[in-house]
Amino acid sequence: MSAPTDTDVVAVVTGLAAAAQKASRGLATLTTAQKDAVLLAAAAAIDAAADVILAANAEDVDRAEAAGTEAALIDRLRLTPERIGGITGGLRQVAALPDPVGQVVSGKTLPNGLDLRQIRVPLGVVGFVYEARPNVTVDGFGIAFKSGNAVLLRGSSSAASSNAALVDVLRGVLSDNAVSADAVALLPSESRDSVTALIQARGLVDVVIPRGGAGLISAVVRDATVPTIETGTGNCHVYVHADADIDIATRIVLNAKTRRPSVCNTVESVLVDKAIAADALAPLTSALQAQGVVIHGDEPGMEPATEEDWHREYLSLDIAVKVVDGLDEAIDHIDTYGTGHTEAIITRSLQAAQEFTARVDAAAVMVNASTAFTDGEQFGFGAEIGISTQKLHARGPMGLTELTSTKWLVWGDGQVRPA
Amino acid sequence: MSAPTDTDVVAVVTGLAAAAQKASRGLATLTTAQKDAVLLAAAAAIDAAADVILAANAEDVDRAEAAGTEAALIDRLRLTPERIGGITGGLRQVAALPDPVGQVVSGKTLPNGLDLRQIRVPLGVVGFVYEARPNVTVDGFGIAFKSGNAVLLRGSSSAASSNAALVDVLRGVLSDNAVSADAVALLPSESRDSVTALIQARGLVDVVIPRGGAGLISAVVRDATVPTIETGTGNCHVYVHADADIDIATRIVLNAKTRRPSVCNTVESVLVDKAIAADALAPLTSALQAQGVVIHGDEPGMEPATEEDWHREYLSLDIAVKVVDGLDEAIDHIDTYGTGHTEAIITRSLQAAQEFTARVDAAAVMVNASTAFTDGEQFGFGAEIGISTQKLHARGPMGLTELTSTKWLVWGDGQVRPA
Repeated sequence: MSAPTDTDVVAVVTGLAAAAQKASRGLATLTTAQKDAVLLAAAAAIDAAADVILAANAEDVDRAEAAGTEAALIDRLRLTPERIGGITGGLRQVAALPDPVGQVVSGKTLPNGLDLRQIRVPLGVVGFVYEARPNVTVDGFGIAFKSGNAVLLRGSSSAASSNAALVDVLRGVLSDNAVSADAVALLPSESRDSVTALIQARGLVDVVIPRGGAGLISAVVRDATVPTIETGTGNCHVYVHADADIDIATRIVLNAKTRRPSVCNTVESVLVDKAIAADALAPLTSALQAQGVVIHGDEPGMEPATEEDWHREYLSLDIAVKVVDGLDEAIDHIDTYGTGHTEAIITRSLQAAQEFTARVDAAAVMVNASTAFTDGEQFGFGAEIGISTQKLHARGPMGLTELTSTKWLVWGDGQVRPA
Repeated sequence: MSAPTDTDVVAVVTGLAAAAQKASRGLATLTTAQKDAVLLAAAAAIDAAADVILAANAEDVDRAEAAGTEAALIDRLRLTPERIGGITGGLRQVAALPDPVGQVVSGKTLPNGLDLRQIRVPLGVVGFVYEARPNVTVDGFGIAFKSGNAVLLRGSSSAASSNAALVDVLRGVLSDNAVSADAVALLPSESRDSVTALIQARGLVDVVIPRGGAGLISAVVRDATVPTIETGTGNCHVYVHADADIDIATRIVLNAKTRRPSVCNTVESVLVDKAIAADALAPLTSALQAQGVVIHGDEPGMEPATEEDWHREYLSLDIAVKVVDGLDEAIDHIDTYGTGHTEAIITRSLQAAQEFTARVDAAAVMVNASTAFTDGEQFGFGAEIGISTQKLHARGPMGLTELTSTKWLVWGDGQVRPA
C-alpha cells in the first residue's frame, strides 16, 4: 500500500474526527453503569481475541526485526498472553474507578433565586499521539471512555497491526453495546501528516495529548491549532541542602536515578550544597558509580560537564552533579534548567523546606522523597494518561478528572437580568 | 516616531516577557496582605494622578476624533473623573476578594507516610490582548496581581496614551512597595507584530487571553505557541419548548436581546417549537419589534434569513428566529451553529429541561432564565477577566481562580519508591 497523499490523510483524519465528535455527544449522557459495562465487555472481548491480537502483533514484531530495530524497542512492542492480561486488567481497574462526569464542583442559589451548579462534563473528543507500546491504545481508550470522551488514537507505525487489531475489537464491543463505534478510532500512522491533521482539526477535536519524546511534543505544540497538553519532559533535580541527612540523600538520589532510568520522573541533576559537599560528594558518587551511573560534573573523577549537561534529560544511567552555593543558587539553577516536572530538596531544616517548596515552580515539589513518586498510580489516581508539565488545565499526573471540563447549569423560573 | 521593525518589536516584547517572568517569581510568594496593600496603594495613586491620566486620555480622544472615529468607539475610549473612580473602585473590590493562591485543592497521606497536598499557585506570566477601553488595563493588572501573576498588557493603539499613563502609575506603585515594577508592562501597540511576539514567547509567557472580536481571537489561536484561552464569542440561543410559558419566553428573549445587545451573552437566535409556534410567534415578534429589533427568519413579516443568519453573532438589535420540530432539532441546530457560550430552554416540562441541560454542550445551559446571566459578577466571582468558550482549563466566566494553576507538594522523611 502506498502512503496516502497529504490531502488524503487530512480527509481521513477529519472524517474520523467529525464522526468522533458526533459519537461524543452520545457518550456524554451515558450513565456510569453503562460505561462500566462497556469497559468490562471490552476486557472480555480482548481476552477472547487474544490469538488474533497476538498474530497481528507478531506481524509488527517481524517487521521490526527485519528492519533491524533495537532489542529494547522490540521488547516494548511485543505482546504476550501475560501482557494482554495486563491490558484487560487495566480496563477492569478503570471500570472500578469513580466516574468524574456529573460531579458537582461548586454551586449556590443566587439572591434572585437562580439555582447555579457547576458540573463536570467530558471534554468531548480527545486525541492521543504516542509511541511503540500497544497497551497505550487500550489504556487510552479506557480512560477516555470512562470520562465520557471519544478518542482518536495515533500510535506509531511500528505497532500498526497490533493497534488495528485492538481497535477492531473495541469498536465491535461498542456496537454490540449500542454505543457508536466512532467513539474510538485509529488514525493512519504512515507519516506525520496524520498528526498534523489531528492537531489542526479545530472545532472537531477538543484536546490533543502527545506522549513521546521532546521532538514530538514540541512539533505538536508548534503546529497545533487545537489545545494541547504537554507531557512528560522531566529534567528533574535533587538539591542536597547544607543540612541534609547524607544517608537519606544518597538513598533518594540512587532510587530516583536507577529505579527506572528511562522514565520522566528520573532525577537528571543533583545539586550539592557547597557547605556539605566535602562530606556528601564521596558517598553519593560512589553509591551511584557502584550502580554503573556515569557522573557528569566539574569535580575530580567525573566526566567533564558542559552547559549541555545541565539541560540534558539523559533517561539513562547518567547524571549531572553540580556544587551550588546555597538555596538561592540551587533555585536559580532549577529555574534556568528545570522543565517544571519534579524538584526535590533533601534537608532537615524546616525553614529550607518551606522556602524551597514555596519558591520552586514545578508540577511536584518534594521534601525528603524520591522524584520517582510523581506518578498517577502512586498519587492514588488509579489510572494515568500522562504527566502534564504545563500549567494550564492540568499539572502533574493526569487521571480521569483531567479529561473533563465543566459546564454551568442555571435553573430558574423566569428570571431576567435588570438593566 | 516611526513604527519599529518586526525584529525590534520581537526584541522589545521578549525583553518585557523575560523581565515579567523574573518578576513573577517574587509575586508567587507575596502574602495576601502584601498584595492587597499594593492594590489599595494603586487605587490611591490612580486617584491622585487623575489629572495626568485625563490629559493623556484627551490626547487619545483628540487623535480618534481627528481620525473620524465613530462616536460609540470614542465614548468607550473616553475617561472621566467618574470613570476613573470606577477603575479605582474596581481595584479596591479586587483587594477585598479572597486570594486563591495557597488554597489546598486536595490532599492525603499515602500508605508510606508521604504527605501529599495539591495547592493553588499563580500561572506565572499572563498576557492580555484587548481593545479600546482603558479601564481593562487596570482591571487586568488587578486581577492578575491579586492571583499572583505578572501581566503583559497589549491594549489598542487608540488608547496608547491613556494606557501608558495608567501603567506608569502602576509600575511606580509596585516599586514603592518593594515589588518588581516588571510585574506589569504595556506592550507596543503600533502593529499586530507585538501580538504575534507575545503569543509566540514560549517558555516566558504561561497563557494569553485575547478579548476582542472573532478576528483577533482566531488569529491569536492560529499563530500562538503559548497556551491561549478563547473568550467571548457568543452565538447564544433561546429554545422556546412546546411546553413553554409564553409570557416567560417573551420576557426572557426580550431581556436577553435588548438589555445590552453588544455583549457576548446576548441571545442571537430564538428557536420556537413548531408545537407552540402558532401561539408564541405573534407575542414574541411583536414584543421584539416594539423595541426596534429586526427579525430575520422564514416566517411572514420577517427579513428573509439565509444560512449566514444562523451563524451570525449580530451584537445589535437583530435576531434570527427559526421554527424547529421538537427538542432534537433544537439541539441539532445548537450543536451546528452554537459557539458553546450560553444556551437556554424555556419550558414547564421537567423532562425537557433535564434532557436539554444534559445534552447541550456549552459553558452555561439555562432553564427559564435569561442568557444575560452568564457573567462573572452575576455568578458572584467579584471580578471577571472574560468568558471562556473553550473547554480546557476554564469554561464560562473567569475570575481569580481561573488565573491559577496548582502544584503538588510532597513531604516525606526519606521515602524511596520500591522497584
